[in-house]
Amino acid sequence: MKKGRLEAFSDGVFAIVITLLILDIKLPHVDYAHLYPALISILPNIAVYILSFVLIGMYWMFHHHSFTFIREVDGVLLWMNLMFLLTISFMPFPSRLLGEYPFKTLPVILYGGNLILSNMMGFIMLIYLHKNRQLASELFTNKTYRQQLKLYLIVNALYLLSILLSFFHPVYSCAMFGLTAIILLIRSIIVLGIGKCTVSKQ
Amino acid sequence: MKKGRLEAFSDGVFAIVITLLILDIKLPHVDYAHLYPALISILPNIAVYILSFVLIGMYWMFHHHSFTFIREVDGVLLWMNLMFLLTISFMPFPSRLLGEYPFKTLPVILYGGNLILSNMMGFIMLIYLHKNRQLASELFTNKTYRQQLKLYLIVNALYLLSILLSFFHPVYSCAMFGLTAIILLIRSIIVLGIGKCTVSKQ
Amino acid sequence: MKKGRLEAFSDGVFAIVITLLILDIKLPHVDYAHLYPALISILPNIAVYILSFVLIGMYWMFHHHSFTFIREVDGVLLWMNLMFLLTISFMPFPSRLLGEYPFKTLPVILYGGNLILSNMMGFIMLIYLHKNRQLASELFTNKTYRQQLKLYLIVNALYLLSILLSFFHPVYSCAMFGLTAIILLIRSIIVLGIGKCTVSKQ
Amino acid sequence: MKKGRLEAFSDGVFAIVITLLILDIKLPHVDYAHLYPALISILPNIAVYILSFVLIGMYWMFHHHSFTFIREVDGVLLWMNLMFLLTISFMPFPSRLLGEYPFKTLPVILYGGNLILSNMMGFIMLIYLHKNRQLASELFTNKTYRQQLKLYLIVNALYLLSILLSFFHPVYSCAMFGLTAIILLIRSIIVLGIGKCTVSKQ
Repeated sequence: MKKGRLEAFSDGVFAIVITLLILDIKLPHVDYAHLYPALISILPNIAVYILSFVLIGMYWMFHHHSFTFIREVDGVLLWMNLMFLLTISFMPFPSRLLGEYPFKTLPVILYGGNLILSNMMGFIMLIYLHKNRQLASELFTNKTYRQQLKLYLIVNALYLLSILLSFFHPVYSCAMFGLTAIILLIRSIIVLGIGKCTVSKQ
Repeated sequence: MKKGRLEAFSDGVFAIVITLLILDIKLPHVDYAHLYPALISILPNIAVYILSFVLIGMYWMFHHHSFTFIREVDGVLLWMNLMFLLTISFMPFPSRLLGEYPFKTLPVILYGGNLILSNMMGFIMLIYLHKNRQLASELFTNKTYRQQLKLYLIVNALYLLSILLSFFHPVYSCAMFGLTAIILLIRSIIVLGIGKCTVSKQ
Repeated sequence: MKKGRLEAFSDGVFAIVITLLILDIKLPHVDYAHLYPALISILPNIAVYILSFVLIGMYWMFHHHSFTFIREVDGVLLWMNLMFLLTISFMPFPSRLLGEYPFKTLPVILYGGNLILSNMMGFIMLIYLHKNRQLASELFTNKTYRQQLKLYLIVNALYLLSILLSFFHPVYSCAMFGLTAIILLIRSIIVLGIGKCTVSKQ
Repeated sequence: MKKGRLEAFSDGVFAIVITLLILDIKLPHVDYAHLYPALISILPNIAVYILSFVLIGMYWMFHHHSFTFIREVDGVLLWMNLMFLLTISFMPFPSRLLGEYPFKTLPVILYGGNLILSNMMGFIMLIYLHKNRQLASELFTNKTYRQQLKLYLIVNALYLLSILLSFFHPVYSCAMFGLTAIILLIRSIIVLGIGKCTVSKQ
């Protein structure tokens, strides 16, 4: 299978998941007099919506970045990628749970667990690529491999910490998810470069 | 990241948001005898559906137009674009509110607020591009910059006026949203040209 | 705006609308003992689902066929196309109505009215293209123009007839929608060719 | 119609269907105290979600593989492809049923029936391509034709067996669906190759 086709399909899935999230913010069926307090009561849903949007957007970027390391997709990578997309497509469910039962242990475990699962799939793809160098592009050096591996481990550790925290203070878990998102966001901006232009003037 | 890829992803999000809007027009569960009055009662929802469809269609066009000014996307522009898409993806929620509670203050504030937020993101991207000329294409002249800035300010002023009006006459606010959409529509037709052909006969 | 971009965006909207239709076939919440009769009771919804799928698939084909007549898209064509997509995106609503209240006058009027509106938009685009020949490709001859015009008129006449019939026998209206779909389907197969190969052996 | 366009449209439909599946996993509306048992009670829905995701992902791969056999799409192939997409787009409905009424005869029949229908459409397209060799690419040899035909027959036999089993032990039917998915998955990995690289070093 051509790499480009799989990328386009993955992009489609990412774009749909990220846009479907809004369907889970349900409009409260109340009189107009009670609309304001009803809207206040769904603020956690909106916060989780933004969090999930940013995190899925991040995974989309990681996905692209990872695909620059791949020269050709074999059957194993294709299915690993589909399993990765499965974990991404599942995100709306724990998002909904976390929005409905904010600051509770169980939703935090499921939300964090889903994030870890997505990360793990990326992690496994990376290791497979490392073991099958003939599928990797020249951008995939040993240095990149170790850098990426470290990143995956740190992020998973942060998610795991959030889950562990949820047994004592689920509120802090949510704060840590948000913090992780912001750290990853800033890191991705630095990696992609600020004001850096690689295209030569035409 | 290649500009084309980000554009394709953004296009996907726009196409999905604009099509999802219809899911919020709920079918009234009534006997057939009461179907006609039930349909009349959801006319505001249908009106807001059309308004949001036109406005999101407009943002899609603006998005494309703006991307002709960009030569390369850095980390900051990438995230600004994702935040812009976040505000667009959110539109179905205030649309639903405005349809459910037509001619009321609170939904008008949220609807207008969302539109202003989307505009602001475009506005900020423009300023960032102006400060980082190396990322801009040759189409992005100082004149274009000032023109676009003026357009953003005028449109935001109109939305803000609609919001302020909603404290006194929410009906007029809705009328102003519609009027703004029509003005922008006519303007975009003029800018894109009527019957103008730039492609030479093959 | 480049024609290709508008086509890709339109394709996205078509693909989403055609796939969203399934969301309107609601699962009956009954005990397993009553599942069979409950499934029988939603057969009209499934029939309308298939009808709308085929008709939207047809509009997608017509859309592509029409775009081969266009060389460049100006501001007017762009907005006509968006308005056309608006009528297509609206289709799930009358589909749901027709499925919920089968063989009733009002849903038939709305369903047929939507189809006529979509057709009208295509009709108007065609006339606009005829009046602005500089935007048309060389495939758009006077003969094609008249052929297409005739096709639009016949199809609209059939839809109008279905609507008129609904005041007396809504059952026949539904049959006529189905018949029109089948006629258009057979016609499109003949136009596209059976077993015809235009690509030369590589 | 160009083959590439039909493929892009089909890809869009596949990406949307596979992502929409998550919308059918409904969040139980219970107190937090009852959330854990409520989540346990929707485990069948999640199992069917994964099963359908894998199967639709497989059909997407088969679809691509089949399109390498096609040189040009005529009117008949175009409509066969649309009918194939209709059966794929319908999958969320029997998936929902199977998740709601797990291990029951009727949902297994509908789920298996839908899978057989999708397979049949692919089967018919293959035979049509065989009868109209001028539309086939050089990759479509007699050997490939027989191989594909055999594959379709075996898979359909497995689905049929699952349906028949459901009259006695619906639990085993579900197990067989899962088993078939795993067998097809392993087969597709072997066919696509493991660690095989066909692209020469640039």
